[in-house]
Amino acid sequence: MPFIAPSIPVPAADMAAAAAAHQNQLTKPPGSLGQLEDVAIWLAARQARVLPLPMAAAIAVFAGDHGVTAQGVAAFPSSVTAEMVRNFARGGAAINVLARTHGARLTIVNVGVASELETLDGVTNARVRAGTADFTQAPAMSRAEAIAAIEVGRAQARADIAAGANLLIAGEMGIGNTTATAALLAAFTGTTAADWVGAGAGVNAAGIERKRAVIDQALARAAANSPADVIDWLAEVGGLEIAAMAGYYLEGAAQGVPVLIDGFITTAAAIATVRIAPAARDWMLASHCSAERAHARALEELGLKPLLALGLRLGEGTGAAIALPVIASAIALHTEMATFAAAGVQGPV
Amino acid sequence: MPFIAPSIPVPAADMAAAAAAHQNQLTKPPGSLGQLEDVAIWLAARQARVLPLPMAAAIAVFAGDHGVTAQGVAAFPSSVTAEMVRNFARGGAAINVLARTHGARLTIVNVGVASELETLDGVTNARVRAGTADFTQAPAMSRAEAIAAIEVGRAQARADIAAGANLLIAGEMGIGNTTATAALLAAFTGTTAADWVGAGAGVNAAGIERKRAVIDQALARAAANSPADVIDWLAEVGGLEIAAMAGYYLEGAAQGVPVLIDGFITTAAAIATVRIAPAARDWMLASHCSAERAHARALEELGLKPLLALGLRLGEGTGAAIALPVIASAIALHTEMATFAAAGVQGPV
Repeated sequence: MPFIAPSIPVPAADMAAAAAAHQNQLTKPPGSLGQLEDVAIWLAARQARVLPLPMAAAIAVFAGDHGVTAQGVAAFPSSVTAEMVRNFARGGAAINVLARTHGARLTIVNVGVASELETLDGVTNARVRAGTADFTQAPAMSRAEAIAAIEVGRAQARADIAAGANLLIAGEMGIGNTTATAALLAAFTGTTAADWVGAGAGVNAAGIERKRAVIDQALARAAANSPADVIDWLAEVGGLEIAAMAGYYLEGAAQGVPVLIDGFITTAAAIATVRIAPAARDWMLASHCSAERAHARALEELGLKPLLALGLRLGEGTGAAIALPVIASAIALHTEMATFAAAGVQGPV
Repeated sequence: MPFIAPSIPVPAADMAAAAAAHQNQLTKPPGSLGQLEDVAIWLAARQARVLPLPMAAAIAVFAGDHGVTAQGVAAFPSSVTAEMVRNFARGGAAINVLARTHGARLTIVNVGVASELETLDGVTNARVRAGTADFTQAPAMSRAEAIAAIEVGRAQARADIAAGANLLIAGEMGIGNTTATAALLAAFTGTTAADWVGAGAGVNAAGIERKRAVIDQALARAAANSPADVIDWLAEVGGLEIAAMAGYYLEGAAQGVPVLIDGFITTAAAIATVRIAPAARDWMLASHCSAERAHARALEELGLKPLLALGLRLGEGTGAAIALPVIASAIALHTEMATFAAAGVQGPV
């Protein structure tokens, strides 16, 4: 089953140059706003406006279960995925608080929770299957299901953009998904699980060793099926929410709307996106480096430098949401500061 | 002329413990909010409330000129200090934009601009003297003037607290003040200028070497006067705005109101405060590590770990202002998230 990637627009280099020239006219030493100048200039090129519009962020949290939790790789029981979806619906989770605090649109997308969920406020039911299979024993899902999950993410990106979003954040909820993420990263980079495993939501050293062994077992099983591309690997050892996030990023880039990457799991989804459509990376901004052991290395693999490093390891899109006001600061400074000429302030000697 | 430091209250350790216990009941892996958990717990102890109140921040920008600019140590002409005060009054500077964006009260305090300034909106005239003397030739100011500048800062902290602030940010504007700062840090730590000089607002390598030579000359001159304490050193090689910021921090701590430290110059002021009243450090939080070469080392000397590192080197309190929403996120998460019990979510296995 082929997957045809959409074409990705090219950011406006001339607007980046114009925005950089504008920055140097503002009443501050040139360069003194550091990464905030970079962010404003980056957004100018993507919005094709010297002065970027105020931020209108959308957050989509994709939820899915992982059959590999049967191998004892997670710090929480698998049923917590569904319990957290109900918590999202009631507004009690971290991402709810942050979306409210920073004025972002929030949607929860059930792309593969194992149990049947009742209708819940703010939760879109787009379940592709009832969780993945235990990928030590069989592929996590079929290639068709992986593509269906990608399309769920793409549809959500289109909905968020139609609702006015000019910045997209994907988050995830799925007990066991750092195991799937480490497996994907090992597969994508031709390395082994040892390079990518970490504590996830809080397993101890023995748990990390168990994750490593489980992943290497799964990679050996999958290799026998000769996965031919990233989508095959998503089907073999991925997750439904991970595939959906890759689709969300892909569609954001295709529509020319920047995406803000969150933590370890979303970074793996972003790497999958870039393997599908390399130009998608031009539309990605990294929000933070998490405390999950291999996240810094995954960001290097993606080729992005994060804005924040606050020791977070929660997921749900929380790191990206915490970075939203930094981006708002960058836009406000770029668009509202006086120029040397207008303020009657002398420039450097 | 003696200076009697006010007494500093002790944060409520029992509230820190209660807030930490509360954090572990919230629907997330324990510890997964990293430094945001630390900030919420830290504020709980200082507000003596398990659930800290929403943030009400005040920013005071202290402006003063530096006679040492006669030695060619600065990237901008000295007159820019006054020009920037007018820019603050018109709302066009970076700190104006950030105060508006993040809802902070902002006051500009003229504690020692060299030229006479007309009456300006939002600018408090508390000028102790018309800039400092060139401290390569004579003390920057008298001990009495240093104490007067400290009292200007203390009065501003009292005014901000009376207006309802529960978090205080000091910022500065003063062409030449990274030279005074490097001199103070060398004096406070018994080192030489080479350890503390940097590019400031943008001098080149030759300019940095000139700063080093100028500072070592000033330190040698001052040593002949046998400075007996931090206030003597502030008078010898300091700045009016630096002394005022030390007073601002001192009074915040004395009133039991947390202070958020900004960049290189404010960190030196904070070190001065702690040398005057060691317990004041319990009320200080570091917002960011700037791109100024010796800021990281100054933060180590102060003993604080910053929240952000965005390559900023602007001053005015901008780094602290950019960190305000991170603190707002920490408070909102701590106070608004559901607990495992209330949400019906199972804890770790």
